[in-house]
Amino acid sequence: MDKVRIGIVGLGNMGSMHTRYLFQNEVAGAELTAVCDKQPDRLAWAKEEFGDRVARFDDYNEMLASGAVDGVIVNTPHYFHPEQAILAMRQGLHVLIEKPAGVYTKQVREMNGISAASGKVFGIMYNQRTNPLYAKLKDLIASGELGEIRRTNWIITDWYRSQSYYDSGSWRATWAGEGGGVLINQNPHQLDLWQWATGLMPKRIRAFCSFGKHRNIEVENDVTAYAEYENGASGVFITSTCDAPGTNRLEVTGDRGKIVIEDGNMTFWRLRVSETEFNRTYKGGFGQPENWKIDISVNDGMTQFDMGQHKGITQNWVNAILKGTALLAPGEDGIKGLMISNAMLLSTWIDDWVNLPIDEDLFYEKLQENIRRSTSKKKVGLPQILDTGGTY
Amino acid sequence: MDKVRIGIVGLGNMGSMHTRYLFQNEVAGAELTAVCDKQPDRLAWAKEEFGDRVARFDDYNEMLASGAVDGVIVNTPHYFHPEQAILAMRQGLHVLIEKPAGVYTKQVREMNGISAASGKVFGIMYNQRTNPLYAKLKDLIASGELGEIRRTNWIITDWYRSQSYYDSGSWRATWAGEGGGVLINQNPHQLDLWQWATGLMPKRIRAFCSFGKHRNIEVENDVTAYAEYENGASGVFITSTCDAPGTNRLEVTGDRGKIVIEDGNMTFWRLRVSETEFNRTYKGGFGQPENWKIDISVNDGMTQFDMGQHKGITQNWVNAILKGTALLAPGEDGIKGLMISNAMLLSTWIDDWVNLPIDEDLFYEKLQENIRRSTSKKKVGLPQILDTGGTY
Repeated sequence: MDKVRIGIVGLGNMGSMHTRYLFQNEVAGAELTAVCDKQPDRLAWAKEEFGDRVARFDDYNEMLASGAVDGVIVNTPHYFHPEQAILAMRQGLHVLIEKPAGVYTKQVREMNGISAASGKVFGIMYNQRTNPLYAKLKDLIASGELGEIRRTNWIITDWYRSQSYYDSGSWRATWAGEGGGVLINQNPHQLDLWQWATGLMPKRIRAFCSFGKHRNIEVENDVTAYAEYENGASGVFITSTCDAPGTNRLEVTGDRGKIVIEDGNMTFWRLRVSETEFNRTYKGGFGQPENWKIDISVNDGMTQFDMGQHKGITQNWVNAILKGTALLAPGEDGIKGLMISNAMLLSTWIDDWVNLPIDEDLFYEKLQENIRRSTSKKKVGLPQILDTGGTY
Repeated sequence: MDKVRIGIVGLGNMGSMHTRYLFQNEVAGAELTAVCDKQPDRLAWAKEEFGDRVARFDDYNEMLASGAVDGVIVNTPHYFHPEQAILAMRQGLHVLIEKPAGVYTKQVREMNGISAASGKVFGIMYNQRTNPLYAKLKDLIASGELGEIRRTNWIITDWYRSQSYYDSGSWRATWAGEGGGVLINQNPHQLDLWQWATGLMPKRIRAFCSFGKHRNIEVENDVTAYAEYENGASGVFITSTCDAPGTNRLEVTGDRGKIVIEDGNMTFWRLRVSETEFNRTYKGGFGQPENWKIDISVNDGMTQFDMGQHKGITQNWVNAILKGTALLAPGEDGIKGLMISNAMLLSTWIDDWVNLPIDEDLFYEKLQENIRRSTSKKKVGLPQILDTGGTY
């Protein structure tokens, strides 16, 4: 294969964005050959933009069967991601899905199983993994510079959303339409980075979600979660859509110091000797380890993805298809952040600890309960971008 | 009364410090007339420093009954504070106690009741209330500048203590000797300021204490606590003695913006219109309230206590005795921070929510269990600075 022929499903904000750079041939080895959307006006937009050089479909299965594409990028609402990925994999196509991987892990686990059997390249649009700040954080942790991790605190409350935002779509902020709130919609990247950069998945979580705080919505829009890790470390994740102005501050403490990412900058307070070593040998009273405050430059050596985050992930996926190079964001990884997200909701619903991996059947059951009990005054129901057989 | 004649009980670090500025007549209207300590070397030190102008006692009750003092400043180990305050109040003396007010609220509540009946001036050495940063925070909240509070996050992990510190006293970091760890020893000020500056006591707390984390001690030295308030706000308090370097960052979000105190600076992101108002009227998609970033100067108008924090509290207490002026830190307030501290331990011990006010009998019972079960290799027992009748 010289070129990967790509079909885009879902021509909303994200899908349209992908078509543009692909159509301009900005991803080496890739070609935009098809698009798919249920809405006539989106297909009319595609015809105007791309003429007849790109095939248009209003039926996803037809696009998959057309022979016009080697791989698809899935940009539909959350609930559809696993099912549409599975359909494409069964057709022998490569798949790149938008985040989140899905709404509940049970469904995502099924997708991962089918992917493993398919032998096709399955990626997820975790474009923030190309962000030099988080890539550098991962580097400093994986290389041992920070030492064994002891604490991870992320205050990520700058996801401000007004009531008018929530009112702008009938599916928004409903259990039936999106399956959650700030965790599933705004934080998939952060929940992924939290585990990806640190290399640590929580062992158990105790979380406190508020539903419809200062907003007339039914899903969670304010969350404080406490996490414990296998190595004894602990962490806190705080997020909200009603703080103004919010904060985005990630602090990771290790045996060799502390890293803080805030306002786009990374600071590393590096201990001259590890805390463990200092504590073992120090004989005085109130002393503490000598630390060096270092402003970490995050642009060095980050050329691989410097052409833009989303495009970078697409290029990486195309390279994996053509050359067999490693994926920066394997699709199977999507279950990790989603597992944390599901655990936070479940902990709130059962008002207790949740061990990871979570009880996926219990989560699914509780989610369905919430959908059934929904008293949202909004018209509940998925936007009918695609007819997926009335499954949802 | 022209002068308040003061007796100092306990000539450790804090007690000695108080004697020095009092002996130099740096507190108007106050005179150091007596000191009390069980240890001969401390009394010898006092004789050398002050000669015979200051009476020396090795028995607390004798000092109280001597007629040489109008008020006492109590600087003994935590467990003694309530009992010694009560003894002084019963003698008709004014009392200023070091923090914490005690180890368990049951005992402190008794002290508060006796104080109320005594009609004497009862203060607590919450010297951080004179810190311009926190005084200004209280001002901005009480005056409505910040609006109704929505979130209070305090990361106060810069209480580094090495094993050698813990090993430096047989009573240190034991349930019998101190009744707790980082909460009772290092954080009394912060736990007080958290409620004093915000004007909010938590309604319920869910806390996660680690005991002897990276240290060979039996008490808590790493805590993450989640708090909920009556008005719907939430908060997080994170503290530790084994992070290096630690963080001291207090963030309070309100309906009119956000205040952050870090590195000795205060920043106020003030919303031009309140979040509630913006949300009510905004019709767009992703917009958010306009905010102005303001560096708050904390030195204006803070002359009352600018002569030093501890001395400031002592002066304020002396003024209250002589002129009837208001106390900045009434002794009765001591129960508030201690209640929060006790709630955090209790939540961990019962692995569940704790409502405030806490079940004081249950806390006392659990504390006694911990004392009985203590496996500390240290010699358990209080330093015998004072013979208080073998109560402890």
